Amino acid sequence: MPDFKKIGIIGIGLIGGSIGFDVRKKKIAEMVIGYSRKIETMEKAVKNGVIDEYCKNPEDIIKNVDFLILATPISALSEYFKIIKNINPQITFTDVASVKKIVCDKVQKIIGKNANFVGSHPISGSEKSGIDFIKEGLFENKTVIITPTKNKNKIVEKKIEMFWEKLGSKVISMSPEQHDRILGFTSHLPHFLIYTLLSMGKKNKKISKDFFGSGFLDTTRIGKSNPEMWTEIFFSNRKNILKWIEKFEKELKNFKKYLKEKEYEKLKVALKESKLFREGIE
Amino acid sequence: MPDFKKIGIIGIGLIGGSIGFDVRKKKIAEMVIGYSRKIETMEKAVKNGVIDEYCKNPEDIIKNVDFLILATPISALSEYFKIIKNINPQITFTDVASVKKIVCDKVQKIIGKNANFVGSHPISGSEKSGIDFIKEGLFENKTVIITPTKNKNKIVEKKIEMFWEKLGSKVISMSPEQHDRILGFTSHLPHFLIYTLLSMGKKNKKISKDFFGSGFLDTTRIGKSNPEMWTEIFFSNRKNILKWIEKFEKELKNFKKYLKEKEYEKLKVALKESKLFREGIE
Repeated sequence: MPDFKKIGIIGIGLIGGSIGFDVRKKKIAEMVIGYSRKIETMEKAVKNGVIDEYCKNPEDIIKNVDFLILATPISALSEYFKIIKNINPQITFTDVASVKKIVCDKVQKIIGKNANFVGSHPISGSEKSGIDFIKEGLFENKTVIITPTKNKNKIVEKKIEMFWEKLGSKVISMSPEQHDRILGFTSHLPHFLIYTLLSMGKKNKKISKDFFGSGFLDTTRIGKSNPEMWTEIFFSNRKNILKWIEKFEKELKNFKKYLKEKEYEKLKVALKESKLFREGIE
Repeated sequence: MPDFKKIGIIGIGLIGGSIGFDVRKKKIAEMVIGYSRKIETMEKAVKNGVIDEYCKNPEDIIKNVDFLILATPISALSEYFKIIKNINPQITFTDVASVKKIVCDKVQKIIGKNANFVGSHPISGSEKSGIDFIKEGLFENKTVIITPTKNKNKIVEKKIEMFWEKLGSKVISMSPEQHDRILGFTSHLPHFLIYTLLSMGKKNKKISKDFFGSGFLDTTRIGKSNPEMWTEIFFSNRKNILKWIEKFEKELKNFKKYLKEKEYEKLKVALKESKLFREGIE
């Protein structure tokens, strides 16, 4: 027997759609109901086995499911929190945003401290977005961070943890603050730096694409990510990202100094240590 | 009938070894003779079909081949230029280093203006190095930049161009100075930035590897490259790289300013343009 009766998914993009597909495939719920602002997306989702059926408005989902996943852009979340507050404040739900503090705060502010909510961040995004890129097994062997707040509701936390584990993920629990600090380095900073690097490219348009090798292309793949989504992420984790950028600037100053002042051995040792660190996280 | 009689390769790593393998496979030469400082490498090369035979000292190759490829680290090149000068100054030869000005200058200085040399840079390296990573077809559909100097020898240039074309490459000719300026941006700068980013990781060791997603891993793959080789490259193209680092620092300052001063729209537009540039070079 499935662990969930009706699961609702609002936002059927890469993440929401891949959740729906695997929930159905793995029979984690009796039924998956989806909502997207675009009717074509919902129709495609039904056709491709991503959801069982769709609702033409989010209220119908929020009223009728026993577990809800909000997989929308960050800026759209508050709108759904308000609907939850108004029509089903007891619903158990989570989100999948790449930032957690701002999201958890909004839930508390809009719905209240007793909301049956624990935030989630599946670390399995990619530079692609939208229903056309959903992927079977996207969460398999990937980390999902869940961020219970001080007003913990252990039952809700366990339920959400179990949900991700059913999708094959490794679940790690931490505070929203800690999540945002860490991901500020491991995800947001590299995106910020790569967008910056690419911005130099557009100022040097005379450089033919023949001169960009696979190193440049792989390094900057993340720069093809959705600009609207990433502007939201950068602004939603602004203070942490600014701190990480400043740390990077200092580190770059050090590395540049080695080169400028011809400290050959120091640079070589630094590169060796960087390589060693990189090999350790694979 | 093959286009070359005896081709010599000094340095049987990723690049030298992959050249040997394809030259033999495509029957571009009657014979490929190799030299490496390590006897085990040479024996492996013969066994794996990378070279036909090896010589125990570079002099024997330099004396006996009609085309020579130096595929050694930058720091080892001068030693071979001296041997060429002493025992076969008329030999037609090229190199495969990622920097060109310093290499071309050394050839002129050591062998003289009449050296039958045009430098090459096949843009097909990877973070891997050594004979264990040689790859069939490594140069297929890849760009090779050749850098004739003012004392052009058209016959030599044509011969080297033809050689790379036989390996399936697209050959582009430019001055060593222009090469170093462009590659300073498209290859050397990203490596420098990624080594710097990874250096921050080693200072934040408490961050578990669970938090580094595929975005971080792909972006920093080039940080697994050989540190000795890259220290040499950075120092061999020092002035250009310092200029590019400074341009990057300025650009980062701009991007940071958008975030710091809450210029949401400006950041979004900048990210969009970066993405557009990235899509244009694929």
